[in-house]
Amino acid sequence: MQPERAAAILDFLALADRLKTVERRGRVVLPDGATRRENSAEHCWSLALIGTLLHAEVAEPVDLGRALMMVAIHDLVEIEAGDTFAYDVAGRATQAAREAAAAETVFGLLPGDLGGRLRALWEEFEAGTTSEARFAMACDRMQGFLQNVMTGGIAWKEHGVSRADTLPRMTPAMQVDPVFAALIGRLYDRAEAEALLGPEA
Amino acid sequence: MQPERAAAILDFLALADRLKTVERRGRVVLPDGATRRENSAEHCWSLALIGTLLHAEVAEPVDLGRALMMVAIHDLVEIEAGDTFAYDVAGRATQAAREAAAAETVFGLLPGDLGGRLRALWEEFEAGTTSEARFAMACDRMQGFLQNVMTGGIAWKEHGVSRADTLPRMTPAMQVDPVFAALIGRLYDRAEAEALLGPEA
Repeated sequence: MQPERAAAILDFLALADRLKTVERRGRVVLPDGATRRENSAEHCWSLALIGTLLHAEVAEPVDLGRALMMVAIHDLVEIEAGDTFAYDVAGRATQAAREAAAAETVFGLLPGDLGGRLRALWEEFEAGTTSEARFAMACDRMQGFLQNVMTGGIAWKEHGVSRADTLPRMTPAMQVDPVFAALIGRLYDRAEAEALLGPEA
Repeated sequence: MQPERAAAILDFLALADRLKTVERRGRVVLPDGATRRENSAEHCWSLALIGTLLHAEVAEPVDLGRALMMVAIHDLVEIEAGDTFAYDVAGRATQAAREAAAAETVFGLLPGDLGGRLRALWEEFEAGTTSEARFAMACDRMQGFLQNVMTGGIAWKEHGVSRADTLPRMTPAMQVDPVFAALIGRLYDRAEAEALLGPEA
């Protein structure tokens, strides 16, 4: 490996480390029962674990290596663009433009061939048209929902998120495969039983 | 998916979430320049990113899906056994027995077929004999070292870790492929230039 290539990879990893300080709205339960906000690096690991568990359960074949690469890199643009809460309508309106600019900066740190491959994977995830991108999307949306259910719906309550608010995000995930429909369906049942989601507007 | 299977997977994911509260000795730099300890979930995500960057750079072919599954699950035993610092000699002596017992508990939560597959992957990682296990090991060791270099060697200084202390862990990683030798070699150069490692005993 050429010294310039090694240096660029290490510089990229140093920048990427900031994803550990990008906070999401979802919570993590601490050993003492208190909660703190989850960060995007932790979120990405949870997706990888969900993907590991479910890739052999879904009907459509998934190239797991490609899906887990997408999972690992899908939120890197947040280092520059910040996390946009799933139910922040104003933020969602500008999200695509902010994240495209961020992708230039973040993936641009890498050697051209490697940066191009990662950027293409990120664009594939965003486009959501391949089997791997759809699988990764379903894992992503299930994870955010699960994190809310596991932590008493704190983020939902803080932001007044109702069941109807969640459907535009969760319905496409449930449509990816009956496995996601079954798992997310159970989570909806639990959210209802525990009154975790807010009242309809 | 049978209801019992879905319930077991969700129970496992709830337990696995505790990995976000298992603290390592390595640090993460916060936006204000202060540091906090890295947790094992964040560490696993960093490994996945390193694996994503390097899998096509190494000479020996790696099944990336299997390698990234190993990366995602390799520290789950820490939920029960705790993180053992790389340079904690007493802790290392009991680590294998503690982690084997933890594997029973953690992977035992899953349906038998799925728990068996994950446990086999964890054992493969621990044995370190396949291409994927050796690649994941090298990513793991490089990540811990890089995290120390990026954060001013705080954990090394706290625990009096010298260059000689690191060699038994880092030499096998550097032997996996010249790519790891080049990257870790650069990190050693930087650690030396910045006097991050402690004096030899």
